[in-house]
Formats: sequence, C-alpha cells, structure tokens
Amino acid sequence: MTASAPQPAALALYTDSSPNGFKITIALAELGLPYQLHHVRIEHAEHRLPAFLALNPHGRIPVLVDRDTGVTVFESAAILLYLAEKTGRLLPADPQQRWAAVTWLLFHAASMGPLLGQRVHFEIAEGGANGAAAAHFRQLSDAALATLDGRLARSPYLAGDAYSVADIASFGWLHIARIVGFDLAAWPHVQAWHARVAARPAVRLGVTIPAPATGA
Amino acid sequence: MTASAPQPAALALYTDSSPNGFKITIALAELGLPYQLHHVRIEHAEHRLPAFLALNPHGRIPVLVDRDTGVTVFESAAILLYLAEKTGRLLPADPQQRWAAVTWLLFHAASMGPLLGQRVHFEIAEGGANGAAAAHFRQLSDAALATLDGRLARSPYLAGDAYSVADIASFGWLHIARIVGFDLAAWPHVQAWHARVAARPAVRLGVTIPAPATGA
Ligand SMILES: N[C@@H](CCC(=O)N[C@@H](CS)C(=O)NCC(=O)O)C(=O)O
Ligand SMILES: N[C@@H](CCC(=O)N[C@@H](CS)C(=O)NCC(=O)O)C(=O)O
Repeated sequence: MTASAPQPAALALYTDSSPNGFKITIALAELGLPYQLHHVRIEHAEHRLPAFLALNPHGRIPVLVDRDTGVTVFESAAILLYLAEKTGRLLPADPQQRWAAVTWLLFHAASMGPLLGQRVHFEIAEGGANGAAAAHFRQLSDAALATLDGRLARSPYLAGDAYSVADIASFGWLHIARIVGFDLAAWPHVQAWHARVAARPAVRLGVTIPAPATGA
Repeated sequence: MTASAPQPAALALYTDSSPNGFKITIALAELGLPYQLHHVRIEHAEHRLPAFLALNPHGRIPVLVDRDTGVTVFESAAILLYLAEKTGRLLPADPQQRWAAVTWLLFHAASMGPLLGQRVHFEIAEGGANGAAAAHFRQLSDAALATLDGRLARSPYLAGDAYSVADIASFGWLHIARIVGFDLAAWPHVQAWHARVAARPAVRLGVTIPAPATGA
C-alpha cells in the first residue's frame, strides 16, 4: 500500500483585494473551507486574460470553481448562495429568517452595492469632477444606507438574530466604503453592526486576502 | 354541511407596470399560480405610503407576500428564487445548469439591471443633459449586453438548454429597454433570444399586468 498524495482542495477562488472579493474570502473563512487561492491582479489587467474570461466572460472577480461538482459560479451573491447551499450554513433554517437573509443579500447585490460602486467612481476615482452625477449617487446610496439603518435598528443582523450571507455581502462593500472615506456617522445602527461584524475573526482574516490588502 | 367560501389566494403581489415588476408577473404566469394583485401606482407615490413601506422599507416594487408561509420577499431576484424554490420549477435540477441559472440571474440583478436603470435615467429621463454620465452608462451597459450576447451565442437560454429565472429577469428589463428605444441590433444572439422569450404566452401575458401596461 502506498501513501496517497494529499488531495488538492476542491474549491478554487479567483479574486483580488476588493469589495466583492472580500465577501467570498470572509465566507470561506467563516465556513473553514480549504481552497486554492488564485490572485487575479486587476491593476495588471489579469481579469482580461483569456484563461480568466473562460471562467467569467464578463471579466470580473470573484469566481469560484468547485471541482467536486464541476460547478463554476461568478457574481459574489451567487457564490454566497452556492456556499450556503453546499454547507447548510450562513442561511437560517427558519423560512422567514431564511428569506429575510436572501432578500437583504439581494438588496445589497442589486440595490446598494451598484450604487456604492458608482459613488466611488464619481466621487473618488473621478474626484467629483462630474458634480451632478456625484450628487445623484450620493443621494441614492445615502437612501440605501438609511434603509439599512432602519433594518438594523430592529435586529442585530440583517436576517434577524442570525449572522448570514446578507451581513457578509453588505460588510464586504462597507469595509471599503469606510476605507475610502465614506462617513457612516449618520447611521448609528449601521455603525454598531459594522463594528460587531468587523470583530469576527473570520472577517478580520477575510479582508486581508489576497495580500497585500487594499488600504489595510 | 355548509359549502366553504372560496379560499383567497395565498400569494399577494405588490407591483406596477415596470421592468422589475414584469419579472414576477411573468414568473407567476409561467407557474400558473393564483395571486392577489395590488397595483402600487408609483406615479401617485403609493410606494411611499406607510402600509407599503411596512412591506419594503426601501419603497420599491415588486414585493411578494406568501400567507402560507408568512414570508414577505422584496428584490425581484429574491422573489424569483423564492418562487423557484416553492414550486421546484424555473431552475434546472442538474447542478451545473442550476448554478448557471443562479449566476446569470445575479449577473442581471447585480450587474446589468442597475446599469440599464442608470442608462435610462441619464439618457432618457434626463435626456442626455449630463453627457459624460450618459456615455459612462452606455459604455458599461453595452459591455454587459456584449457579455450576454456571447453567452447566448452558445446556448438558447442563459442557463443552457432550459428556460429559467435568469431569462425571466433579463427579459423583464430588456422588454422596457427596447420600448424606450435601445437598439439591440449590435447583439444578434440577444435579439434572437428576446424574440424566443417574447413569444411565450406567459411572457405576453406578464408584461400586460398591471394594466394599463407601460408603453404597450
Ligand atoms: N456584481 C459583481 C461585481 C463584480 C466586480 O465588479 N468586481 C470588481 C472587483 S470588486 C472587478 O472585477 N472589477 C474589474 C473591472 O471592473 O474591470 C459581483 O458582485 O461579483
Ligand atoms: N433591485 C430592485 C429594484 C426595484 C425597483 O427599482 N423598482 C422600481 C420599479 S421597476 C421602483 O419601485 N421605483 C420606485 C422608486 O425608485 O422610487 C429589484 O430588482 O426589485
């Protein structure tokens, strides 16, 4: 009998140090799942290379490949749902809390995240040169933050009592929003929730992967 | 023995004649599920009334309430996932096709839909007065359409062979994009898919609810 070689991890994550990537490095750390890390350096345009476009034809990180199932998933919210279904964790079992988690995950993915992204573009990347567009996205993203604050006034986490993929998705983006200088002081419940989530060991680890961490 | 009164439908849909609303009226028609229709007239600011904000604190349609489970869901992509899970339909069973459907559903919800929305805002609602912002969203939404076209060059539907929630979500928005004058001629596979989906009886019905239909 010969000793078998150690099995490579079934999961491979393609990511960079960035808001949508952190959602997955945090989730994988929470779940304690081993994975192969592929650092796709956006600043070197590695997300435009043919080998990466074969995984996500839209050329965006993160992408997860699961060799156990032959499944490739992109879009960070889809990857979070995949990991929750694979492990039976990070989504509450109770139907009302479960669908609250999916609802707030989608609120982040479809409503808040894209607005924060455009706000960073017009306010930070372009330095506010297009004042009307910067004001438009500031107003819309502030309205989304106010909605989030109202929700977090009523429960410690977005789905209710349990920490879930909805918190991970929202945190991934707000972590960077704070680093680039967004002031969350107007939303005290968002701030308290942010501190609660930021204190989790898996979250502290997740935002450092891949190194060097953006703005850390 | 007395005859029992007819049971009210378990599902209640709050919607208006608009892109995100059509995703759900189409899905419910595909599934043949009865539901109570609540027309939330955005032009009369009915989405800002307290009774509606109690269902979705962000004040957006669509919202689905299921009295059988006590679940309230907002965000159109979350509602589509809910209906697919409730019925076991509109998401393929095969894991690879299933996660392809979730991936492309999220590609619409998180990447393409928000860009089309901003393009309509800057190009149509504001009439292109902010030329730089209009060009920014035209470029980004065109890139998303090119990605969709590449996908649809390889399979008849977004998840592969089977029509799914991913097609419904993408169609809901592109139906309106065409009505407001977006030219899809540069994306022949998107155009052929659009015609294929538009011919489905449930789709033809879904885009007329609630009446009067936007731009129909
Ligand atoms: N909706 C997508 C957005 C993905 C995304 O925009 N990723 C960024 C990094 S955070 C990226 O790859 N940017 C490269 C580019 O835009 O070219 C998701 O949630 O995964
Ligand atoms: N991401 C949300 C978007 C919902 C949305 O923006 N709905 C529009 C109608 S299509 C709305 O309610 N607009 C009212 C407003 O913006 O005040 C979804 O997919 O459900």
